[in-house]
Amino acid sequence: MSHISVAPEFEAANEKYAASFDKGRLPLPPGRKVIALVCMDARLDPAKILGLSEGDAHVIRNAGGRAVDALRSVVISQQLLGTQEIVIVHHTDCGMLTFSDSDIKTKIRKELGEDADHIAFLQFSDLEQSVRDDIAVLRKSALVKDVPITGYVYDVTNGRLNKVEA
Amino acid sequence: MSHISVAPEFEAANEKYAASFDKGRLPLPPGRKVIALVCMDARLDPAKILGLSEGDAHVIRNAGGRAVDALRSVVISQQLLGTQEIVIVHHTDCGMLTFSDSDIKTKIRKELGEDADHIAFLQFSDLEQSVRDDIAVLRKSALVKDVPITGYVYDVTNGRLNKVEA
Repeated sequence: MSHISVAPEFEAANEKYAASFDKGRLPLPPGRKVIALVCMDARLDPAKILGLSEGDAHVIRNAGGRAVDALRSVVISQQLLGTQEIVIVHHTDCGMLTFSDSDIKTKIRKELGEDADHIAFLQFSDLEQSVRDDIAVLRKSALVKDVPITGYVYDVTNGRLNKVEA
Repeated sequence: MSHISVAPEFEAANEKYAASFDKGRLPLPPGRKVIALVCMDARLDPAKILGLSEGDAHVIRNAGGRAVDALRSVVISQQLLGTQEIVIVHHTDCGMLTFSDSDIKTKIRKELGEDADHIAFLQFSDLEQSVRDDIAVLRKSALVKDVPITGYVYDVTNGRLNKVEA
């Protein structure tokens, strides 16, 4: 089944957003001085989940919401844009729980004929531990400032954040 | 000035979100089969800018919305969760336009006493070219499927997406 580009739909939606836009004077540094590090999962809307408005927070998202893959962005945020806190959000039913490193590397070799051995895909098997691990990665990194870090597991079935004790 | 943690405010906002939550049965793969790769900037709300609902799209965000730093997530999205399109959003007044690689490395050495020479911070001086470069990174990567890729510069002063011709 061929895919029809959704870019024109995005452009039409953006016309509507721009028509009633009233956020044109917000400053560059995040007003609430916080980074939200969140999984890229389609079901998660960080602004809604955390109650963010435009201008509030840096939002870093990647597969799993993994810290080691966010390091460049965290350092830029802290060093140049004054953030002083980090919140991590992983979630139930995450795709990262569904595969092994060798699964995806075998699939890539089969489908694309390529070697992906140089990529650590950072999947995990224990969701709460993945949050604790990512808090630890940030706390231990010499390039990350000593700031409050709070980790949550978001439940995709009920919209609720559950705090993970580090 | 000491920072007071915003995590309790996030938890209170989440209580409200969860109380009226009705998205508990969405499937894991993105419904609109698209990845939005967007800068982490606090002023950008990708869901509002692009008209996304929960369940629609993988949203990858990092400093600058850079492709090379999103590669792991793009591969996971395409190989395991069926996305078939990529949309890139960089924006005016981006923090990535304000520093040089040596600026941030010198600052880190001075403030943290650490060497960050192993990190490419991926700042840029030409905004449109940064979008074209990132489209090219994805098109040329042997690990990324041949899918439609559209790039935009978002204008933070008026909420409007301006397409970049690749």
